[in-house]
Amino acid sequence: MKSKYVLMDHGSGGLATQELVQEVFLSRLANPFLCRLEDSAVLEPLKGQLAFTTDSYVVDPPFFPGGNIGSLAVHGTINDLAMQGAEPAALSLGLILEEGLPMEDLHKIATSLAEASKNAEVPIVAADTKVVPRGKADRIFINTSGVGCVPKGVKLGSDLVAGGDAVIVSGTIGDHGVTIMASREGLGLETSIKSDTAPLHKMVYELLKRFGSAIKCFRDPTRGGLATVIHEIASASQTEITLYEEAIPVRPQVQSVCDLLGLDPLYLANEGKLVAVVAGDAARNVVEAMRDDPLGMDAAIIGKVNPVNGPGRGRAILETTIGGKRMLEPLTGEPLPRIC
Amino acid sequence: MKSKYVLMDHGSGGLATQELVQEVFLSRLANPFLCRLEDSAVLEPLKGQLAFTTDSYVVDPPFFPGGNIGSLAVHGTINDLAMQGAEPAALSLGLILEEGLPMEDLHKIATSLAEASKNAEVPIVAADTKVVPRGKADRIFINTSGVGCVPKGVKLGSDLVAGGDAVIVSGTIGDHGVTIMASREGLGLETSIKSDTAPLHKMVYELLKRFGSAIKCFRDPTRGGLATVIHEIASASQTEITLYEEAIPVRPQVQSVCDLLGLDPLYLANEGKLVAVVAGDAARNVVEAMRDDPLGMDAAIIGKVNPVNGPGRGRAILETTIGGKRMLEPLTGEPLPRIC
Repeated sequence: MKSKYVLMDHGSGGLATQELVQEVFLSRLANPFLCRLEDSAVLEPLKGQLAFTTDSYVVDPPFFPGGNIGSLAVHGTINDLAMQGAEPAALSLGLILEEGLPMEDLHKIATSLAEASKNAEVPIVAADTKVVPRGKADRIFINTSGVGCVPKGVKLGSDLVAGGDAVIVSGTIGDHGVTIMASREGLGLETSIKSDTAPLHKMVYELLKRFGSAIKCFRDPTRGGLATVIHEIASASQTEITLYEEAIPVRPQVQSVCDLLGLDPLYLANEGKLVAVVAGDAARNVVEAMRDDPLGMDAAIIGKVNPVNGPGRGRAILETTIGGKRMLEPLTGEPLPRIC
Repeated sequence: MKSKYVLMDHGSGGLATQELVQEVFLSRLANPFLCRLEDSAVLEPLKGQLAFTTDSYVVDPPFFPGGNIGSLAVHGTINDLAMQGAEPAALSLGLILEEGLPMEDLHKIATSLAEASKNAEVPIVAADTKVVPRGKADRIFINTSGVGCVPKGVKLGSDLVAGGDAVIVSGTIGDHGVTIMASREGLGLETSIKSDTAPLHKMVYELLKRFGSAIKCFRDPTRGGLATVIHEIASASQTEITLYEEAIPVRPQVQSVCDLLGLDPLYLANEGKLVAVVAGDAARNVVEAMRDDPLGMDAAIIGKVNPVNGPGRGRAILETTIGGKRMLEPLTGEPLPRIC
């Protein structure tokens, strides 16, 4: 059966499913684990603690400047593993397709999945495809789960953050959020901005190798943005974190769109940036090391952790460019649904 | 924020997401891994090969006699691990919610997820929640991925199947498929049948302990049903498999509904049954061992593997009750969409 569109039959588990899997996915993602087509992939034992994560991607639109839902799904889950210091070992792929999705779109997304997986050197070893009738999903939803190995000696966590630490971001913020907003039909925004979607595990690996326990925790500021992540870290560590607004890298075009639409880049999603909290005396060297990586060119120290006891614990404060101070709260409301 | 319905805000990644996660999920699923709320769960090293699987669940309706999408999502992924001989270690949970889903339904599903996970003794250690606008999904879709450990010495696979082996099914077939069909609005079927959704890992563990390498492979006949699985095994092993129709256990009520609607139970989904191919001389003992387990009460030998060379390879044949023979092909077309 050759169809220009995804049909219900492609989700039956029978012959049409096998054909779809073969033509669209196995042709591009082939590896010895996936090709066995058994109920589970069986991988070699991992040497260390097992990291395990999951994320579903429902981004609207599925295609946007800088990537599509396929590359996003690979990078996002790799980054979730990397933030725990894990070396990603393998990904799974769960597809929910809407009947009528153009087969050409599915091929493009599969190509991106395959390229992202290959470039990151993390294979997709298990997969599942479901099809729902037209109007019961929005084109394509992707779940990627991931497993990885935390090397011996690596210990990261918000609970390790303490007074005197420095807060670093690996580059400009808000690029992904503004790109998705500008890509939405009807908004009529034209910008040269593209999504920052990228895999951060190699940067993390290098940083851990060079700086070891000077690094307290990594977080990727996706949904909820930088402000939400900083608030979470302050809350988990029961410290007070101060961010310096003027130190936070934001592209001028991103700032312009935000000004126009009344959005705050601190709350916009990023898909190729990380926040690192590191020992204060290592901060400069960490930033320089990040800048050696093309994905960390705009890295900057953006804040510090203040030791506090009593009522100030667990809060985050922004020192604004004009010299004021305001509390950074976690995101409330939903300014940009389906950003990832 | 207290709402009787799921709102877009619940998927923002901000405060409303945190509240939803806490009230609906952490309150029921609490374990030290999930409660850290980091980007990945970090588990102890597994002692053996790592099994990894994924499945998305889009069953319509999400509530049905015998279970709901929550218990189904836990059992289905546990079974995918078990079919490779893996002892399930942990599950991830990826939720895609439609705006407007009654919060009461979400609580019911979360309760089932928690009960199924607890009864199976497999914790949910990582989770993600997305919300899409009304009309962009159908109430709730769930992805569960799973990791497990294949004990040393366990080797299973369709490629081990050889002439002389026997084919066993652990119980009646078609129960889940007929239940879902009868549950669909407007079909007006009243039956006493309920879904067979159940976790099979403990049965698998016992069988492997007792019969070791006499067991060649396990498969769970979900989408595509028994016929599709048998065809896949014959194809992978390049053997010919004969099934005896009269030996295949089917509940009379299931057969009646199938007769009424022109469906073949051999192609209906099962969610708590397994097919085992075992060495011929072990078959009787394996069936008896299955019957010791409440989930295997109706286990039966239903066929045999014929050694063939040449053009007969890779096919499956049904010897019918009235003495005829027909080829068993994999499922084509989609008689029952969104069965799981």
